[in-house]
Amino acid sequence: MRLYDGGRAPNPRRVRIFLAEKGMQVPVEHIDLASLQHKSAEFTALNPLQRVPVLVLDDGTVITESIAICRYFEGLRPEPLLFGRGATEEALVEMWNRRVELNLYQAVSAVFRHLHPAMKDMESQVPEWGEACRKHALARMSWLDGELARRPYVAGDRFTIADITALVGIDWGRVTKTRIPPECTNLLRWHELVSGRPSARA
Amino acid sequence: MRLYDGGRAPNPRRVRIFLAEKGMQVPVEHIDLASLQHKSAEFTALNPLQRVPVLVLDDGTVITESIAICRYFEGLRPEPLLFGRGATEEALVEMWNRRVELNLYQAVSAVFRHLHPAMKDMESQVPEWGEACRKHALARMSWLDGELARRPYVAGDRFTIADITALVGIDWGRVTKTRIPPECTNLLRWHELVSGRPSARA
Repeated sequence: MRLYDGGRAPNPRRVRIFLAEKGMQVPVEHIDLASLQHKSAEFTALNPLQRVPVLVLDDGTVITESIAICRYFEGLRPEPLLFGRGATEEALVEMWNRRVELNLYQAVSAVFRHLHPAMKDMESQVPEWGEACRKHALARMSWLDGELARRPYVAGDRFTIADITALVGIDWGRVTKTRIPPECTNLLRWHELVSGRPSARA
Repeated sequence: MRLYDGGRAPNPRRVRIFLAEKGMQVPVEHIDLASLQHKSAEFTALNPLQRVPVLVLDDGTVITESIAICRYFEGLRPEPLLFGRGATEEALVEMWNRRVELNLYQAVSAVFRHLHPAMKDMESQVPEWGEACRKHALARMSWLDGELARRPYVAGDRFTIADITALVGIDWGRVTKTRIPPECTNLLRWHELVSGRPSARA
């Protein structure tokens, strides 16, 4: 198989952290987003949505979407479990991954897309929406801070895919100065905990 | 268990279609969104994010997020399979569900939230972003139309959760007149096919 990575972009990092947690190594081809390689005809043939990461299996099957790629690796190597096991646990991990992705990660993403100068030529920016999303992102950090008063990790007592999504989303916020508010002591404690894992350097 | 439903809202419909496909029945409590029952103290205690649907298990476990609830039901009753089975198939269904949700469903949702008068008092509307999302939604219908030229269902030869997400998203577009363009003949053929299933009336 071959993983088409995108360097410092957040979604490829989700997959790299996941692989590091699994202790897996996969042949990687680097896609240079700065030179718009993801918009080339060759890459568009792999993913018409022109986004990284992309995983191509040996039989030619193409898997896009970070979480789908992670789920494939979970199927290949279940331990350590990062999506949970059994109906209830799998549902709760899905719930927490979605809660942090749809509420926090996507808000941070929108701040970047709608306010960062690097995205000016690539997207139809709506700065008013970017500013609203910055408020949403900070409000959701406060909400997550309250949740993390009750347990060590986002979805419970163990590190899961939901922690990876939250970590990558929060670190992405640095680019637009959308940072964890200092009063969010539980979230800061969690951030230090998960940032200390070797996988966080991926 | 008890399912807190929200009537005509799109996310509860995803769960109802899923249950109908599984041939499952669950005790339902109706949450009246029009009278803001989802913002009541009682409901907020169940889901601090104040959104339907919510599933409460007999031991008190609370599962929110439509797809997490559907995944729980898939675990209870695997057949008919709606999330796939095995590493590759599960990854491909996840990929397609995410592709249609993050690109099409969310664009239709943003049109509603940012342009519909019913949402005026509830959300900070940014009409410019709503208009951009209407263009995105239509562009993504065209993209999905091209995909559906090659297979009967969104993720392949079988009906899956990705079809449910796409159907509910597209039907939701009617409220804001964000309709399938007439030249999207494959998408229209697919829409007629999935709308003809008994579950679509859920």
